[in-house]
Amino acid sequence: MTISATLSSHGKILMSPLRKSEWANQPVLCKSVELFKNGRNEYRMSTNSNKFQCRALEIENKSSTKFHLDDVIESQQFDRETLSAIFEVAQEMEKIEKNSIGGRRSEILKGYLMATLFYEPSTRTRLSFESAMKRLGGEVLTTENAREFSSAAKGETLEDTIRTVEGYSDIIVMRHFESGAARRAALTASIPIINAGDGPGQHPTQALLDVYTIEREIGKLDGINIALVGDLAYGRTVRSLAHLLALYKDVKIYFVSPDVVKMKDDIKDYLTSMGVRWEESADLIEVASKCDVVYQTRIQRERFGERVDLYEEARGKYIVDMSVVNAMQKHAVVMHPLPRLDEITVDVDGDPRAAYFRQAKNGLYIRMALLKLLLLGW
Amino acid sequence: MTISATLSSHGKILMSPLRKSEWANQPVLCKSVELFKNGRNEYRMSTNSNKFQCRALEIENKSSTKFHLDDVIESQQFDRETLSAIFEVAQEMEKIEKNSIGGRRSEILKGYLMATLFYEPSTRTRLSFESAMKRLGGEVLTTENAREFSSAAKGETLEDTIRTVEGYSDIIVMRHFESGAARRAALTASIPIINAGDGPGQHPTQALLDVYTIEREIGKLDGINIALVGDLAYGRTVRSLAHLLALYKDVKIYFVSPDVVKMKDDIKDYLTSMGVRWEESADLIEVASKCDVVYQTRIQRERFGERVDLYEEARGKYIVDMSVVNAMQKHAVVMHPLPRLDEITVDVDGDPRAAYFRQAKNGLYIRMALLKLLLLGW
Amino acid sequence: MTISATLSSHGKILMSPLRKSEWANQPVLCKSVELFKNGRNEYRMSTNSNKFQCRALEIENKSSTKFHLDDVIESQQFDRETLSAIFEVAQEMEKIEKNSIGGRRSEILKGYLMATLFYEPSTRTRLSFESAMKRLGGEVLTTENAREFSSAAKGETLEDTIRTVEGYSDIIVMRHFESGAARRAALTASIPIINAGDGPGQHPTQALLDVYTIEREIGKLDGINIALVGDLAYGRTVRSLAHLLALYKDVKIYFVSPDVVKMKDDIKDYLTSMGVRWEESADLIEVASKCDVVYQTRIQRERFGERVDLYEEARGKYIVDMSVVNAMQKHAVVMHPLPRLDEITVDVDGDPRAAYFRQAKNGLYIRMALLKLLLLGW
Repeated sequence: MTISATLSSHGKILMSPLRKSEWANQPVLCKSVELFKNGRNEYRMSTNSNKFQCRALEIENKSSTKFHLDDVIESQQFDRETLSAIFEVAQEMEKIEKNSIGGRRSEILKGYLMATLFYEPSTRTRLSFESAMKRLGGEVLTTENAREFSSAAKGETLEDTIRTVEGYSDIIVMRHFESGAARRAALTASIPIINAGDGPGQHPTQALLDVYTIEREIGKLDGINIALVGDLAYGRTVRSLAHLLALYKDVKIYFVSPDVVKMKDDIKDYLTSMGVRWEESADLIEVASKCDVVYQTRIQRERFGERVDLYEEARGKYIVDMSVVNAMQKHAVVMHPLPRLDEITVDVDGDPRAAYFRQAKNGLYIRMALLKLLLLGW
Repeated sequence: MTISATLSSHGKILMSPLRKSEWANQPVLCKSVELFKNGRNEYRMSTNSNKFQCRALEIENKSSTKFHLDDVIESQQFDRETLSAIFEVAQEMEKIEKNSIGGRRSEILKGYLMATLFYEPSTRTRLSFESAMKRLGGEVLTTENAREFSSAAKGETLEDTIRTVEGYSDIIVMRHFESGAARRAALTASIPIINAGDGPGQHPTQALLDVYTIEREIGKLDGINIALVGDLAYGRTVRSLAHLLALYKDVKIYFVSPDVVKMKDDIKDYLTSMGVRWEESADLIEVASKCDVVYQTRIQRERFGERVDLYEEARGKYIVDMSVVNAMQKHAVVMHPLPRLDEITVDVDGDPRAAYFRQAKNGLYIRMALLKLLLLGW
Repeated sequence: MTISATLSSHGKILMSPLRKSEWANQPVLCKSVELFKNGRNEYRMSTNSNKFQCRALEIENKSSTKFHLDDVIESQQFDRETLSAIFEVAQEMEKIEKNSIGGRRSEILKGYLMATLFYEPSTRTRLSFESAMKRLGGEVLTTENAREFSSAAKGETLEDTIRTVEGYSDIIVMRHFESGAARRAALTASIPIINAGDGPGQHPTQALLDVYTIEREIGKLDGINIALVGDLAYGRTVRSLAHLLALYKDVKIYFVSPDVVKMKDDIKDYLTSMGVRWEESADLIEVASKCDVVYQTRIQRERFGERVDLYEEARGKYIVDMSVVNAMQKHAVVMHPLPRLDEITVDVDGDPRAAYFRQAKNGLYIRMALLKLLLLGW
């Protein structure tokens, strides 16, 4: 039996035993058969019993005429059009969350079960996903420390774990310590996978919520000026954000960072090749006055090893305080992926331009949108 | 814009853009705006976008004409009248729990989301709260060990964590290792906070369930005789209970404890100043025969450090066994906050006067009542 | 008052105050009273208040005319007839799970609350139970590491913990590190207990899902030939499976294992006494060609201590690869309790005879069936 290549991996085929004499008399008794994704665009079929040959009676494909979201693995998988469509859904989610309370909550994901398979703890991200699922009426299975998952500890492969967990749930949100783990999970799973961070690799939902926040706060993405401040060398967040900003027109990026954690050449070269203007600066106040967004990040101590002196020097260098905020334009905003230490002073919190807690909340809307899209489609 | 000082922090204000021309044509499109509590009685407003000035069209205040419960932080916040009102609701909860089963469960908190933010593990307390929430149809986000919350470990302040988590939930139940942490959380949060224990500080829901148990078991609180037995020096439980008992009339308290863990003077002085009669005794059987309640507590080994000999001497001194119970009046009861080791012998469990497991169950009703009151009002 | 010995521990008795004058006027206001199980077949009654004597007005016994399932403690508690009845329910569960999606999910356990009390982590088993509960519309309270349960750490007995947790939930799924712990919990609890593994003791739901898988895959249990391969000395799984297989007729078991982990005499003697034919063999391919089921297991490194050489020799000895599978009959299957390391090669996964992931999924159906039976009856 050949299955159309356009079939969604989450579609269903209504099946019936091959011998017509058997099914002709019971045409209603069709069997739902799962499609297993072997690779990006290949599928194999499996009935549960392997006991009879099948043929397709009718094909029900949940993928719409729009575009397709099977898994969320890396920021690079999104083009401008997809982002825009996701943001539209996120705004619907925002309305759903704001206009409802208690018993009037949404139940669009009622009966769906999300497994959070976290191989390293990240309570903030986990709570955000679990809240998103529950705000839409869905249910959650939680593993806060899957690395000690008895099976993983005993040497089970990620693939085997995924094959087991996919039997218990409808979607898997996974955080892993190894770059590429989410992609491997997606290649194995017949249900959608969302990458909630895989080691030094990707954290695509953070990148999406950052871009969404800029659009919501500034009202546009084309033509914005943005300062990326702090740890630009190791920060997964700013690197992904730079990638996504390259999808938009007339963006200007200012890099403001201590010398030891400067933005690396691969991103600079990429931006140049995409026609994005960028420059490095040491004057945070001057940059802030020209930007729509000042995106501050935390200098990560763990990157400096024994060199506490270098860390102390780096972390104190570019602080966003009221003198920076006062230099900013009225419509501009300060963003931060959180958690923050003292790289934004607490007195900034009261200024309407402090957008970082709204940004965190936007993570909820983006995750609600992705769960909705992956489970129900557009 | 000025907001009435009587407004509940959990109320809502229906807003509209300031320029009448804008909202006059779409009067239905009012915007719900959150109020953030800055302090006990101060509020600041925030729209999500900070993009336009607002004015209030209509104020909907969920706080009733009765009295007000914003947060549950410490036993001292409750007066006699409030306790009595909470206990009434707890009894309703008891009926709800007992008369329902399976599909006929209550759904009064359906669509509400509680976050349990536990900075130190306390499975018993956590399960009690989570059961309470689910018995009323609500949902739960769990963090069993928030101290290792990646953000906290990285140095994020409690205030920042609360600002993030309040975006994901409708109420936060928090346990912390630092005295005063719950109050700090309540000052920050725009949603209700329940203190589930903050270090050596407060554990108000335990105090409430203790007093509720006395009322349910003995039928009154005024005029009771009660023996507090065991570790009176360090036991947070008995200290809080003594505080609450001082709200009632004609209470007589007997302190029965090894010398090394005697009740401290601050509580004795407080009781005297409130007109509560108390005396110390070394004769548990004689005291038991005069009391309505014998409240036994565990001697905590960790308080004795290296002095295992002192611990062993202290813990064996006042055991509640059948000889004590047989001396008690028919209507009297034995209470214990649990867990117990051997300070109550197992054969006592079968006696109807053993009230400690009913007491634990009352914790469920008290927590159901508090969740209901904080989320839905009186 | 005497209670009929045939009463289920989960039944209810409708009660009323003893003095007829009191209840005659309010016959509707009957009180539901809990029965506490003291032992297998003894019950004591308890009202919540101990405030009045009662007499039974009406007895409602949830146990049906069929047979009785109070707790799931050990494989030996099941006879052939009970297994068959459970498997029928499991097949219904399979239909429920397969034919439903999203909002059309089953809600037969809506309003029921399951506590997973795991004294040692076993994420796979825990997720399987929690998924089962949620697939039927029920709710879950989770403790992933109850050993650090503050109370247990402080020395509370298992019995006291159970008495507390039973107040918060409708059923307890328990995993413990001590053999016999589940039975002790069941003797204490007034709600059903499911043993999810107690140390070297029992793991009855694994045994049930294994037998269920054989029936589903092969279509029968009488007359099957089965090879038990790998660690037969320490493997709890194969020992329990052998026990259950002895309930069926004409079963032939082949033991294929390295010498250091051979099947022990107690099981061999038991099988012989039950009339089960068995033989030991060193030729896996020859055995595989004769069997309906090849049940492979993992050699557990932890059993070998310092003797890594013996472990390495043992683990490489009997690998199920395509040469073994190619020797098997078309209808035969390979099973494995998972997790697997390399004792089944990955290329076997694609063969329809690889039944181990279907077997894992069957665990979900068996657990759904048990939850349904324990909470709602047959």
